[in-house]
Amino acid sequence: MNTEQIEREGLAEIAHDRERGASELARRSLALLAAYVREHAHAPSLREDARGFARKLRATRPSMAPVQNLVAEWMASLDEMPDAQDDAPGYLAGQADSLIERSRRAVTEAATHAVQHLAPQTTIITHSSSSTIREIFRLAAPRVGAIVTESRPLREGVALARHLSALAVPTTYITDAQIAAFIGAADVAVIGADTVLWDGSVVNKAGSRLLALAARDAGVPFYVCCESFKLSRTLPHEATLEEMAPEELDAPALAHVTARNVYFDVTPARLVSGWITERGMTADFRDADWMRAGS
Amino acid sequence: MNTEQIEREGLAEIAHDRERGASELARRSLALLAAYVREHAHAPSLREDARGFARKLRATRPSMAPVQNLVAEWMASLDEMPDAQDDAPGYLAGQADSLIERSRRAVTEAATHAVQHLAPQTTIITHSSSSTIREIFRLAAPRVGAIVTESRPLREGVALARHLSALAVPTTYITDAQIAAFIGAADVAVIGADTVLWDGSVVNKAGSRLLALAARDAGVPFYVCCESFKLSRTLPHEATLEEMAPEELDAPALAHVTARNVYFDVTPARLVSGWITERGMTADFRDADWMRAGS
Repeated sequence: MNTEQIEREGLAEIAHDRERGASELARRSLALLAAYVREHAHAPSLREDARGFARKLRATRPSMAPVQNLVAEWMASLDEMPDAQDDAPGYLAGQADSLIERSRRAVTEAATHAVQHLAPQTTIITHSSSSTIREIFRLAAPRVGAIVTESRPLREGVALARHLSALAVPTTYITDAQIAAFIGAADVAVIGADTVLWDGSVVNKAGSRLLALAARDAGVPFYVCCESFKLSRTLPHEATLEEMAPEELDAPALAHVTARNVYFDVTPARLVSGWITERGMTADFRDADWMRAGS
Repeated sequence: MNTEQIEREGLAEIAHDRERGASELARRSLALLAAYVREHAHAPSLREDARGFARKLRATRPSMAPVQNLVAEWMASLDEMPDAQDDAPGYLAGQADSLIERSRRAVTEAATHAVQHLAPQTTIITHSSSSTIREIFRLAAPRVGAIVTESRPLREGVALARHLSALAVPTTYITDAQIAAFIGAADVAVIGADTVLWDGSVVNKAGSRLLALAARDAGVPFYVCCESFKLSRTLPHEATLEEMAPEELDAPALAHVTARNVYFDVTPARLVSGWITERGMTADFRDADWMRAGS
């Protein structure tokens, strides 16, 4: 593929993906940037063209902090690269690869901390399917149980259930509407995050806030686990929540009726029992400078 | 149809119906009893046979108080009927018809009270599709707006959206998972009830408790509206919540994964701002002897 194809198809891929979480899409964005610079044959315009592609990648998923943060970090190496850099494409692709590796390692480390905080024989309830949650179960299987929601409209819960089945984790699969009916069967609620806002509020798949409310009401601790690349300087009132095609709901076409498909909701920090990243766990986000340092 | 057919097909119909609410199924049960006694050709065994059918009807939907209450009330007329009753089938069918009429009137009166408590230009968020909710919108249309949930697994929200569309009520249709994302756009939350428990807790379609939690958290008042035939002497810890076929979730068949389809959840009385029946509205269920008097 040439750079034009990589850019066109890559932007469409990142913009329209509804299965992968924010971290995975951030890493995929970096891989696309690496492929782009490797294919780029015209040295004088490399920096400018790559910057343009990177900006467009960020614009595809404005609510996803890791896409914003990791691509911005890569753009910083682009800016700081000397004009006389030997093998600029190789250097820039290497920078992307090393960011991908840092992000992967951060996810595993965050999941490791989460597992350390969970007692054995714990039943974990979760919502949607983030790579961090899958990693937690990979590390904790099969000595934990799971309650997973289907996560309408596209039912990411199906993919998570497949993952849990392969890990031999005893799993209960429920509709999103049954969260309150099953919260009492869980010892702990854990979700990933698309973005952690500057005050500790969490942007994640719509329904996460309902899980947090049900957990708080039932006295079940509610944790957020993600790598610190998910932190955004945005505050809740400034957050843009992506809205997807209403067709995904398969709603009837009716006069006076509008189907809405807001993909994310914001769980306020006051409903979160603890934030777990590659740096450990904190129960008080206001003091979480160790997380902010990663932004 | 003969009585055997009415009994066999009627029991299957009431047991398997997933579209109609508890009141409608209670009235349908009474209509089946009326048809049964009208077809019954053997006077000496009429009372005994009809009692058997009535008992079986009640057993099909143990969580639905109106099925329990209205059929029990009809059974009382069966017991109290003199042996020498003229045209016993006609008398018993008439008793069923008059109970059906009382139930219908109670729904309309409860909905009328609800509308009186709602300010004009109110946006009402609701969950599932009960006949009482449809009646509220019929009486209030088109001067209110609606936010309706799809109500997985069988999406009763689709039928409610059709009803609202026909009434020209401006309606937003969302997934159950978006309840917290949209609660702030509602002025009031109103649900029907399958059963109101003895302490004021409400058994209704799974997801109702999530709506109540989201409403409480957002400062949106949460009302339950139903006729007093919905009151049950059961307490929350004694309540049986019907579980339906997991196939309704269309979940993948996977080792270690069990799909669950608990149809109802219990919204604790502490999350209810007010109970509205044909007798009016109360904000304090403990004093609601006017409702208990109907049981």
